[in-house]
Amino acid sequence: MPTSVSGLPFDDIRAILRALPPKDEEAIAAVRARDRDLTKPAGSLGRMEELVEWLAAWQGLAPPRVDRPLVAVFAANHGVAARGVSAYPPSVTRQMVDNFMAGGAAINQICAANDLGLKVLDLALEVPSDDITVAPALSEEACAGTIAFGMEAVAGGTDLLCLGEMGIGNTTIAAALFCALFGGGAADWVGRGTGVDEPGLARKAEVVTAALERHQAHFGDPLEVLRRLGGREVAAMVGAIVAGRTERVPVIVDGFVATAAAAVLHRLDPGAIDHCLFGHRSAERAHGWALEAMGQRPLLDLGMRLGEGTGAALAAVVVRSAARIHSGMATFATAGVDRKTDD
Amino acid sequence: MPTSVSGLPFDDIRAILRALPPKDEEAIAAVRARDRDLTKPAGSLGRMEELVEWLAAWQGLAPPRVDRPLVAVFAANHGVAARGVSAYPPSVTRQMVDNFMAGGAAINQICAANDLGLKVLDLALEVPSDDITVAPALSEEACAGTIAFGMEAVAGGTDLLCLGEMGIGNTTIAAALFCALFGGGAADWVGRGTGVDEPGLARKAEVVTAALERHQAHFGDPLEVLRRLGGREVAAMVGAIVAGRTERVPVIVDGFVATAAAAVLHRLDPGAIDHCLFGHRSAERAHGWALEAMGQRPLLDLGMRLGEGTGAALAAVVVRSAARIHSGMATFATAGVDRKTDD
Repeated sequence: MPTSVSGLPFDDIRAILRALPPKDEEAIAAVRARDRDLTKPAGSLGRMEELVEWLAAWQGLAPPRVDRPLVAVFAANHGVAARGVSAYPPSVTRQMVDNFMAGGAAINQICAANDLGLKVLDLALEVPSDDITVAPALSEEACAGTIAFGMEAVAGGTDLLCLGEMGIGNTTIAAALFCALFGGGAADWVGRGTGVDEPGLARKAEVVTAALERHQAHFGDPLEVLRRLGGREVAAMVGAIVAGRTERVPVIVDGFVATAAAAVLHRLDPGAIDHCLFGHRSAERAHGWALEAMGQRPLLDLGMRLGEGTGAALAAVVVRSAARIHSGMATFATAGVDRKTDD
Repeated sequence: MPTSVSGLPFDDIRAILRALPPKDEEAIAAVRARDRDLTKPAGSLGRMEELVEWLAAWQGLAPPRVDRPLVAVFAANHGVAARGVSAYPPSVTRQMVDNFMAGGAAINQICAANDLGLKVLDLALEVPSDDITVAPALSEEACAGTIAFGMEAVAGGTDLLCLGEMGIGNTTIAAALFCALFGGGAADWVGRGTGVDEPGLARKAEVVTAALERHQAHFGDPLEVLRRLGGREVAAMVGAIVAGRTERVPVIVDGFVATAAAAVLHRLDPGAIDHCLFGHRSAERAHGWALEAMGQRPLLDLGMRLGEGTGAALAAVVVRSAARIHSGMATFATAGVDRKTDD
C-alpha cells in the first residue's frame, strides 16, 4: 500500500486544519458581562471563571452548558510492546477493554459516581501497529482512516469531550512522539509508565532512540511523525480533538499519551488546540515538560498516572461545576445583595 | 458576664481534645490490601489512593463510604467590619445568608450540580462579635457555646463534612488569628479578601496590629486567642472539626478563614487536625503560608478566594470519586486481567 500519494488522506486533514473555526468572542463577552453581576466578588472564583469563558468560547454559547459530558477511551495495541517496554504483557489491552465494558475499571467508577457518559473505542486490537524500531507504525491510509474514526467519537452529541486511552506500550510511543515533535533525547521523555523496572526503562530509552534514528528524516511533518511513531489510539485522539473544534465541543485531554495527540496538532498549528484543556498533570515524569512545551497549565495535580481518561474525567466534573455556577447563580440585583462599596 | 471563671466551658473542650480517637490502622491496612488487587498498576492513582486511606483511617471503615457528604456554611458578623476592612458593607453577610437560603450563591450551584448536602448556620448575625482592636471578640461563655453549636453541624448524619463560612470582615479576623498563632507581623497575613483596595489593605494591617497589641499577653493559649481574636464562625468551625473527629466524620476545610479554625486546633495539638483535608489553596495571599505552617498540602489549586465552602465542596467531589473507585473497581482475579510480568 502506498504511504504517500498526492491528493490523499493527509491532505484532507490539512485542509480541515486550515479552516478551523475561531473562538466566539461574543460568547466570551456575554459570559464576562454576566459574571460581573453574579453575587460574588469579581475574580473570586479564579480559574473557575476562566473555565466558563473557555467553554463559551469554543461552544459558541453563553451561558455555556455541560449537560452531556462524555469520556471517550481509545484502545490500541503496539508492535513495540513485544520489546519488553511495559510492566504488563500486551494481552492486558484487550483484558482492560473487557473490564471497561464490564464496568470494572477506575474510569467506570469515576463516570458512574459523577454522571459522565463513557464510550470505549477499541481500534483493531488484533492488529498492533508495526514496531517503530523497524518500520512506520501505520500506513498513511491507516493513520488517516483512524484519525477519521476518531472524529466519530464526537458524533455522539456531547457538549464536553474527555479523551483517554488504553494501550500496553503506549507511553513508549508517546515518548517517541514527544522526542520527534519537541526535541531532546529519549532519556528526557521516557518514564516508568505503568511501573516498569530499571532494565525496562533502559529498554524504553533504547527503543525510542532506535525509532528516532530510523524515522528522523521525516520529522519535518507532524502528521508523518504521527504515522511513523504513533499508534492507532493517538491517531484517533488527533481526530477527536479536530472534530471537537469543528463541532464546537470543548475537549479535555487526559495524561501523557493523550497529550502526545495534542502535541501533534500543536506542532502543525499551536492554535489548533486552543479548544483543549489539559485535565491534570500526570505523575509520568515528562508530562509536565510536554505541557510546558505547549504553554499549558493543567487543571488538577493529583499524582495520577493511570490513563483511561481518569484525569480528564475528574477535570470535567470541575468544569461542569464551573458552568453550573455561572448559569445558576443569582445576580446582585435579583438577590438584593449590596455591591462593593466602591462600585 | 464573666469572661474567665475556673472550671468552665474551655475546660470541657480541653478534656475532649485530650481524648481524641486515633486513626483506625486496621481500616488502613484493609484498604491497602484491597488496593493491591484492583485492576490498575500499584500507585497509579497517586493522591486518590491516599484519600481513600485517609477516609478509612478516620471513618474507621474499609472500604470507606461517601454517601452523605455535607457542606456546612457558618455565617457571622464582626465588630471590626465597621473599621472599613472589607470591600463590602456588613449588611452583605445577612444578604448572602438569604441568598444561600434561596439557592442563589456559588456554593448552592456546586452542591446542586454534584449532589452534596448543604446546611447554612447563621450565628447571631444581629450580634456581631466585639471589635478586636478594643475588646475580646467573645466572652469565654459565648466562645465555648459557639464551639458547642458548631459540634452540632456534624449531627446531621454526614460521612464527609465540608466546612465553609461567610462573614464580612472575617479575613481580617483570620489574619489576626494566624499572626497570634504562627507569629509574623500583620503585613505578612493580611490580603485583599473580597477585593479591598490599597487604603483598605492598609486599614486591615493597622486593625490587626492594634488587635495584636491589645491581646498579646494572652497568646500562650490558643483557645484564648480564638476567644479574643476570632469570630463566631471560626469558633463554630473549631467545634465542627472536633466533632468530626469524635464522630468519625472526616473533615474538608475550605479556604483562608476556615483554615484559621484548623490553626487554633493545630496549635493546641497538631494531631487534632489529622482527620482534616485542606480542600484547596486559596488565592488569598497568606493561605499557602498557613498551610505550610501546618505541613499541609491542599488538594486543589484553582485560584479561588470566595469562601462559602466552595473549595472544600469541589474537593469533596474528588474525594467521593476516590472512594467510589476503591469500592467499585474489579480485581485482577475477578476481571481476568493479567498482572505485572514481575509480580
